[in-house]
Amino acid sequence: MVNWFRFKFGITALVVQLFFILMFAWLVEYEHDYGNVEAPINGNHTSETGRLYPPFQDVHVMIYIGFGFLMTFLSRYGYTAVGINFFLASIAVQWAILVRGFTKYEVFKGDKYDAVAKELISLDFAAATVLISFGAVLGKTTPLQLLVMTLIEIVVAQINQLICTRFFSASDIGESMYIHAFGAYFGLAVSRVLYDKRVKDATKAKPVYHSDHFSMIGTIFLWLYWPSFNGGAASDDEQQRAYINTYLSLAACTVVTFALCAIYDENGKFKMEYIQNSTLAGGVAVGTTANMPLHPFGALIMGSVAAIISVTGYRFGSAFLADKLRIHDTCGVHNLHGMPALLAAIAGAVLAAMGSTEKWGQSYHQIFPHTAPISEGGKGWTNIQQGGYQMAALALTLGIAIFTGIITGFMMKLPIFDQDQIKDADDMFEDSVFWVLHEEEHLPMKHGGEQNGDKHKEMELRQRTTVGEHGIHL
Amino acid sequence: MVNWFRFKFGITALVVQLFFILMFAWLVEYEHDYGNVEAPINGNHTSETGRLYPPFQDVHVMIYIGFGFLMTFLSRYGYTAVGINFFLASIAVQWAILVRGFTKYEVFKGDKYDAVAKELISLDFAAATVLISFGAVLGKTTPLQLLVMTLIEIVVAQINQLICTRFFSASDIGESMYIHAFGAYFGLAVSRVLYDKRVKDATKAKPVYHSDHFSMIGTIFLWLYWPSFNGGAASDDEQQRAYINTYLSLAACTVVTFALCAIYDENGKFKMEYIQNSTLAGGVAVGTTANMPLHPFGALIMGSVAAIISVTGYRFGSAFLADKLRIHDTCGVHNLHGMPALLAAIAGAVLAAMGSTEKWGQSYHQIFPHTAPISEGGKGWTNIQQGGYQMAALALTLGIAIFTGIITGFMMKLPIFDQDQIKDADDMFEDSVFWVLHEEEHLPMKHGGEQNGDKHKEMELRQRTTVGEHGIHL
Amino acid sequence: MVNWFRFKFGITALVVQLFFILMFAWLVEYEHDYGNVEAPINGNHTSETGRLYPPFQDVHVMIYIGFGFLMTFLSRYGYTAVGINFFLASIAVQWAILVRGFTKYEVFKGDKYDAVAKELISLDFAAATVLISFGAVLGKTTPLQLLVMTLIEIVVAQINQLICTRFFSASDIGESMYIHAFGAYFGLAVSRVLYDKRVKDATKAKPVYHSDHFSMIGTIFLWLYWPSFNGGAASDDEQQRAYINTYLSLAACTVVTFALCAIYDENGKFKMEYIQNSTLAGGVAVGTTANMPLHPFGALIMGSVAAIISVTGYRFGSAFLADKLRIHDTCGVHNLHGMPALLAAIAGAVLAAMGSTEKWGQSYHQIFPHTAPISEGGKGWTNIQQGGYQMAALALTLGIAIFTGIITGFMMKLPIFDQDQIKDADDMFEDSVFWVLHEEEHLPMKHGGEQNGDKHKEMELRQRTTVGEHGIHL
Repeated sequence: MVNWFRFKFGITALVVQLFFILMFAWLVEYEHDYGNVEAPINGNHTSETGRLYPPFQDVHVMIYIGFGFLMTFLSRYGYTAVGINFFLASIAVQWAILVRGFTKYEVFKGDKYDAVAKELISLDFAAATVLISFGAVLGKTTPLQLLVMTLIEIVVAQINQLICTRFFSASDIGESMYIHAFGAYFGLAVSRVLYDKRVKDATKAKPVYHSDHFSMIGTIFLWLYWPSFNGGAASDDEQQRAYINTYLSLAACTVVTFALCAIYDENGKFKMEYIQNSTLAGGVAVGTTANMPLHPFGALIMGSVAAIISVTGYRFGSAFLADKLRIHDTCGVHNLHGMPALLAAIAGAVLAAMGSTEKWGQSYHQIFPHTAPISEGGKGWTNIQQGGYQMAALALTLGIAIFTGIITGFMMKLPIFDQDQIKDADDMFEDSVFWVLHEEEHLPMKHGGEQNGDKHKEMELRQRTTVGEHGIHL
Repeated sequence: MVNWFRFKFGITALVVQLFFILMFAWLVEYEHDYGNVEAPINGNHTSETGRLYPPFQDVHVMIYIGFGFLMTFLSRYGYTAVGINFFLASIAVQWAILVRGFTKYEVFKGDKYDAVAKELISLDFAAATVLISFGAVLGKTTPLQLLVMTLIEIVVAQINQLICTRFFSASDIGESMYIHAFGAYFGLAVSRVLYDKRVKDATKAKPVYHSDHFSMIGTIFLWLYWPSFNGGAASDDEQQRAYINTYLSLAACTVVTFALCAIYDENGKFKMEYIQNSTLAGGVAVGTTANMPLHPFGALIMGSVAAIISVTGYRFGSAFLADKLRIHDTCGVHNLHGMPALLAAIAGAVLAAMGSTEKWGQSYHQIFPHTAPISEGGKGWTNIQQGGYQMAALALTLGIAIFTGIITGFMMKLPIFDQDQIKDADDMFEDSVFWVLHEEEHLPMKHGGEQNGDKHKEMELRQRTTVGEHGIHL
Repeated sequence: MVNWFRFKFGITALVVQLFFILMFAWLVEYEHDYGNVEAPINGNHTSETGRLYPPFQDVHVMIYIGFGFLMTFLSRYGYTAVGINFFLASIAVQWAILVRGFTKYEVFKGDKYDAVAKELISLDFAAATVLISFGAVLGKTTPLQLLVMTLIEIVVAQINQLICTRFFSASDIGESMYIHAFGAYFGLAVSRVLYDKRVKDATKAKPVYHSDHFSMIGTIFLWLYWPSFNGGAASDDEQQRAYINTYLSLAACTVVTFALCAIYDENGKFKMEYIQNSTLAGGVAVGTTANMPLHPFGALIMGSVAAIISVTGYRFGSAFLADKLRIHDTCGVHNLHGMPALLAAIAGAVLAAMGSTEKWGQSYHQIFPHTAPISEGGKGWTNIQQGGYQMAALALTLGIAIFTGIITGFMMKLPIFDQDQIKDADDMFEDSVFWVLHEEEHLPMKHGGEQNGDKHKEMELRQRTTVGEHGIHL
């Protein structure tokens, strides 16, 4: 009743934004000093900006439309899905600039961090990590909790990536380890800590007919632009391979997802939930190996196996996690991001261990720079060593993700972050807890004047339940 | 009751995917051998991949978002529209790689087929052919039938295109003949063979308010990216003309569609069905001539005429086809793709016959290589000959499309492909035949325990009918 | 009852299109004469077309998907929002080619106007101006009125821009003055003249749950591609700065919008209306300065201030405009486009006045060519002069927009343009006035056979009211 929350979230967000402004003023600058424009000012000149911008925009669509709409599948949670996704990503990209500046040590060298166009895709990648975790806790958390999660996760995910790339020289072009595995297991760890058994009674954790249509907008844009996610930051032959491998893996994954979906259902029917998610597992599964000579048929195999893992996870794994391990995974991020990312990482390690300059040509040293001879700037690692370091990167990623996820979960549970706004199962997966819904304006206010019991209750019921039930018939 | 279907579709799809994997292992490889990376590894270097990738992604959006959502206009068939579109396209692109490899004879030369980035747009083109045919039979076919149709149509469409380009040297930059005419008349032939008079009683062949909104997402993305469809594979001046001609044709087509829509309606109102489809006819209508010097005003005329043909087709033609010729055309592909493609092809022939190097400069030989002198690698065809071959290409395309469409229709009718899953008019245009709908979970199972007649019937009715009726008020 | 309207709109639109065709035949041609193809026909060559096309397509999505879907938030006006947006934009881009040809004097020099690929983005910009004005009068105007508005506004907006750029040399890379300020104040002036007090009783001026989801599709695509809007026409360092500044401004704006939204609401809840619109104000606010060295932190400040202005406008300003000034602003274009554009223009003037070649390097003369010495082709303006001319451009823009908007409003009021089609408050924001809605087909015709009073009235009521009320529970 007291409007404490009214100010708490808003003021916190304003303070964060003010902090970003001050830090940017101190630390961040454009790449080129505008006093020294050396690039030719020529209409036909293709700048690096021009080259990197189209795939960046594809990834940008994935983050805000893709993740945002994919999560609108719930009957009464579309505003939060697409809206809070929007908010968190906007926090994440700003924070990622600062954190990346620090983790790259540029700041400590006295330089300002270059806010260059080629970095933009990396900022969206950083945001993706958080949004995957968001999928695990969707419907069970407050905006304030999610803001806290975002601020922490960006830092630990970037540190993890820094260690894995700097010390293990682990190649992960589509960042299946650093984004998908990290985001999924961090989110699952948070979800485990926040577990509330009342989620079993949450009747709104279901789609309706039209909400599944909105969700498919997200799915398909993610699917379409995934080659840009895995290949947008690569170049030349590596880029061509990344595009083709991802494209093929996704196509195969989609076919196998439909096939298994029908096989698993007792009436041979398709389930939208599986289609919306498992079709994307092929993009995750080739994330580490996309730029490697996986061969086209190898990409098809990766996508097919990813589909098998992912659909099977949705069919059997999610219930197991929820019932036995008390990890409620709203969007099934374990099936879409977690397990396929493990597949990706293992495939990367195996390819690294089996590859060589004889087989791959120059690509081998380009992809794994530490395998180059010391005379050529590498460290002379053997292929087996490189494979081992790839596995070490996976192990470290899982360890850091789960450990910091648990700690973050406990922090998010602190009463100050408003978990108690979600009072009962009926408040779970329910937009009206955080949003002014227009239908409310036409119905008696819940806490409003009129108090004649039955009618009030009936109307409140209508607002709360019929709305949902109603939607069901859509 | 028996779950035969459960395994049939799924296992068939898995077998197809396995076949693809084996064939890819045998036949398909990346363009560049990774042992011979010769391209400069240079951040500012613009690779062919980089140049072709943005328009490819535009076309990619057209295939999966465009076609998929355009077909969601039916009140109860959105899952199938966007979902099966997704499945079929994913089959089609993989199959098209193999078929294109064969039709280009590359395989017979002992080479592997190059899965190069510049091929990706052609794979989406191949998928488009199938998805146009899908529009004609939408709501009246099973996924298994559509899978069969996809596998056959890709082969015959690619053979048709091979003959027309190899022997007739017929220019068709946006493939209005090879994709739009072929897909439309093939689909109409299939629809004729599959004709079931109960379709007249199918009450669900109607949109509701929100389903038409989803459909407009498809329309507008198709409309926006159509210049990429017609010009993405062209270069330099031809590309610029293709972009501008398509852009202008679409704009004029949209204006005339709205105008005619109001004129044809007795109350001067617009009809969403016409707007969703006929606005796109301008893209089809310049498909053959987009890269030619059609002049900007010529592009406006093409678009305007396309709109007249298309809206008139929706207003009068579709009923004629259905009632007199017993061809039920769910999405009106004859009006959107068929007739405008005839216009495109005829315009192409006329321009070829009227053009010359005097009028077009080098472009004439570039666009019609066989008109170049034999000394320059051409065949010395006259402009009249080239015009004739353009018409021959159209005639062959129509002949092959209709003939193979009829045969495919009869194959699809074989009981093994499950046409009888669609038991009555109420199963037409009804997602619940193939999809698990969430509302079912909240209602007594159709074949479930409780059998007390009246209530069961009432609830089933509610599930089947009220849902639809309900949606109507949206 | 008489079908006068049936022919009026349609014939008018046809006449306009025919006029366009004739004018194009007279005045418009491709950039390169096809007889003189000099550009290398080389796969790896990057043409200007190729460089400009991807950001153009981003802007294209903004115009047709962005503006179109953003305006679908109303419960019963989605067809008009996305459909008439589609129609008007298609008129606008064709008309803009002609008008731009005239305003650039190219025609008077005897040349044809070049319909070049690099112009395409400018045509979409011209359309945006009209669509912003459309947002102010949405739901209260007829298609014919809007057609008239489009034809007039394109002309006056282009003349305004011509004067400001030609004589004041006012820099406005993202055209915050020429598009956003002009479109908003022109639209508000029209809305003032058309003011009808019955709008207060228009119960349909409200969203429902799903319509707000459709609207978010528009919001997010606008948000994502806004960097292309502000930077697509720039190059090199200016382009990089434009992309980064816009990106950062939007991110900050989004965070502050969510924060203020919660602070302003008595229960600390978010309001979709604010989120859908104010998050975009950051794109408008950096429109004039995007290519200038605003510094990354400066971009964050611009976005934050824009959010404060915009959300405050929605919270307090709109009611003031409607109640006190009798300006009903359906989409709140004053808050999204008007005020943030003022901020943008003032910031541009301040930066111009404070900048110098010492501080900005070459960029200063490139951005403000008249400040270059006369010996270098400039006019030798001082920075203070340039700042003054920036302000003059804003003043002129506001003056012309408001003055011509008022005149246009009175023209639109002429009975011939069918304002009286909107008979009462129930016809406002109601698609069925202009569109055939499918539910009507299932209900007794309003003017149809059956006339037994009560039932007819009940059904009509159901059609009119229940439909709306029904939707409310979605």
